[in-house]
Amino acid sequence: MTQVYLKKKISRRIESGHPWVFANEVGKVEGPLDGGDIVDLLNHDGKFVGRGYANPKSQIIVRLLTRNKSEQIDDEFFMKRIRAAWEYRQKLGYTENCRLIFGEADFLPALIIDKFNDYFVLQTLALGIDRWKPAIVKALETIFSPKGIYERNDVPVRELEGLPQLKGFLSAPFDTSIIINENGLKFKVDIENGQKTGYFLDQQDNRRAIRNIVQGADVLGAFTYTGTFEIHAAHYGAKSVLGLDISASAVEQANRNADLNGYGDICRFEAVNAFDVLKQWGKDGRQYDVVMLDPPAFTKSRENIQKAITGYKEINLRGIKLIKPGGFLVTTSCTNLVQPEMFLEIIEMAAKDARRTLRQVVYQTQASDHPIIWGQDNTHYLKFLIVQVL
Amino acid sequence: MTQVYLKKKISRRIESGHPWVFANEVGKVEGPLDGGDIVDLLNHDGKFVGRGYANPKSQIIVRLLTRNKSEQIDDEFFMKRIRAAWEYRQKLGYTENCRLIFGEADFLPALIIDKFNDYFVLQTLALGIDRWKPAIVKALETIFSPKGIYERNDVPVRELEGLPQLKGFLSAPFDTSIIINENGLKFKVDIENGQKTGYFLDQQDNRRAIRNIVQGADVLGAFTYTGTFEIHAAHYGAKSVLGLDISASAVEQANRNADLNGYGDICRFEAVNAFDVLKQWGKDGRQYDVVMLDPPAFTKSRENIQKAITGYKEINLRGIKLIKPGGFLVTTSCTNLVQPEMFLEIIEMAAKDARRTLRQVVYQTQASDHPIIWGQDNTHYLKFLIVQVL
Repeated sequence: MTQVYLKKKISRRIESGHPWVFANEVGKVEGPLDGGDIVDLLNHDGKFVGRGYANPKSQIIVRLLTRNKSEQIDDEFFMKRIRAAWEYRQKLGYTENCRLIFGEADFLPALIIDKFNDYFVLQTLALGIDRWKPAIVKALETIFSPKGIYERNDVPVRELEGLPQLKGFLSAPFDTSIIINENGLKFKVDIENGQKTGYFLDQQDNRRAIRNIVQGADVLGAFTYTGTFEIHAAHYGAKSVLGLDISASAVEQANRNADLNGYGDICRFEAVNAFDVLKQWGKDGRQYDVVMLDPPAFTKSRENIQKAITGYKEINLRGIKLIKPGGFLVTTSCTNLVQPEMFLEIIEMAAKDARRTLRQVVYQTQASDHPIIWGQDNTHYLKFLIVQVL
Repeated sequence: MTQVYLKKKISRRIESGHPWVFANEVGKVEGPLDGGDIVDLLNHDGKFVGRGYANPKSQIIVRLLTRNKSEQIDDEFFMKRIRAAWEYRQKLGYTENCRLIFGEADFLPALIIDKFNDYFVLQTLALGIDRWKPAIVKALETIFSPKGIYERNDVPVRELEGLPQLKGFLSAPFDTSIIINENGLKFKVDIENGQKTGYFLDQQDNRRAIRNIVQGADVLGAFTYTGTFEIHAAHYGAKSVLGLDISASAVEQANRNADLNGYGDICRFEAVNAFDVLKQWGKDGRQYDVVMLDPPAFTKSRENIQKAITGYKEINLRGIKLIKPGGFLVTTSCTNLVQPEMFLEIIEMAAKDARRTLRQVVYQTQASDHPIIWGQDNTHYLKFLIVQVL
């Protein structure tokens, strides 16, 4: 097996458990280093550090799969890891739907698998894990006997690894428009064409967290996508729910989801630009008991972080202005580029500009099927906040 | 009314909403300044800032009750504030038990009121709020028609305000050993002699958070006090629960609480020093599926912060060593002197020393009947963490 030696003076990141090795951290390589190969990582004086897959064309030249020298990377390895991940989620109470594999946090870097009852959607975001797709599919078949497996590898990040963007069946073809159950509600999931893997499982617990504050409330939601937060609001007793999304197709699906649950009379969705509409309604003096904001990341790169901050600040300011005294703001941010402290500061700035006082009711991250590994920033990305606006 | 003028150059803390005015922030005082008086606070050029109560003998010379110039501080004021606090908690789903008034976070500095079904326990921790006890009691009587009101002012912090330590009835006497219901369980609360106000309401949500991980588990709890976490564990399906507390009286109450709920055969409590016992059991190689640590603050002053850090680090290290691979650590810290980031660092250090890898499952603060006001550190004190220990 090819041996990759680390330089002597590098950060303690790898030693502390981080699985990524950057090209500039490598001293020498003994043996051929072809993209996707399994290699051994050694420190500068030859001590075994771990075993992982390599890609000399990527900035991340090695991603570790194990630190156990006696553990071989083979079909059995993937079976074992996926089984452990499922056991973990079952222990946490997940039954039907969950993120089954959350990449680094499940010690399978660059692999994402979402379980939607009997259907599985996967993403292999690096060359070295893409190679093991057959082993991964075999493991899913053995453990779950699934009705279908689909790959949603139509993501630009794959190009950094020299991989093409693609999507398609990894099992016999099936109807990719499925229905899942969450918190006693039904939601249509478009596995083939929905955002990311088709559905945002990471807010499962957060959708439950609005349970009490929406009772009897007039609720406004923005960036609703297929309407899950809004339909939960109706389910938990909201008087009226208006949801906004810029995508006509998302609004159409949201309305279908509302009808599917019998809340078509309470929930209404409109295809508009939330930034514009919230601004106008603020001027008009419209007021809601609860405003829920679930905006996109606004940026994907550290260079444009200011763009994200400005976006979050502005939309939260506009949202806060629409809240009755004593009402509630439900607000989220889904990019790890905006760290929790910064996110809370942004909301505080927005409240100051709106001359409103806030009380923190709930602060959470993503659901626990997306566990966080400390020191691995990309595993801690979702911020979910409920504040009372006085 | 006496007018207290702020100095020109002081921190923006007061302007940003903090209700405390320190003696060294005051420029001049016009009128008499007697302890407990209601005074107006003005900035250096005479602009109204707020109205509050004074204590020239305290480091905190004024605590603001309102920033609204037209709002008078009278019986009606306290009625209004307490009513608003109750409405807030009802909106969040509280019915039977809650912290009704959480001091600064309810805009009633230095006032604590806990509601245990029909009984109320209050603490007035500053001279200026102590004066209003009759108005506060009257408001409670009007809003709740309580079965009993008790004051637990046997706390040393009152001496900083020149107040005596005392406890006793603020209503007709009643049997101070009561029973409350929480998450479908019954707990005996000793209003007169229990810790603080008799019961720790702040962990209500956190006790629910162990629901899934304790199923079928062998659970060890330390610093159990009257056994609430442990009895919840039994209720949620633990196979066996052993609880440790150094106080024989706490252990006796914990055993009674276990019996009260029919879990006397699953839950066992022992009066021992957890530090010693956990160390010994680590050497003996004992292993548990779940270890729960709910230790005291270890320090009350910023000067002794290192003592707290050492205490938390040590007990968590000992706890982690007792956890089976893949098991869970449930751990908390209740002092605002140890901020969240520091607490997580302490747990990380403990895991490193034990050579174990952690995955964060849940991180929460105190329940939302103890709302957090940003910038007021004393309102953000409880840290509750569940990690998987690999």
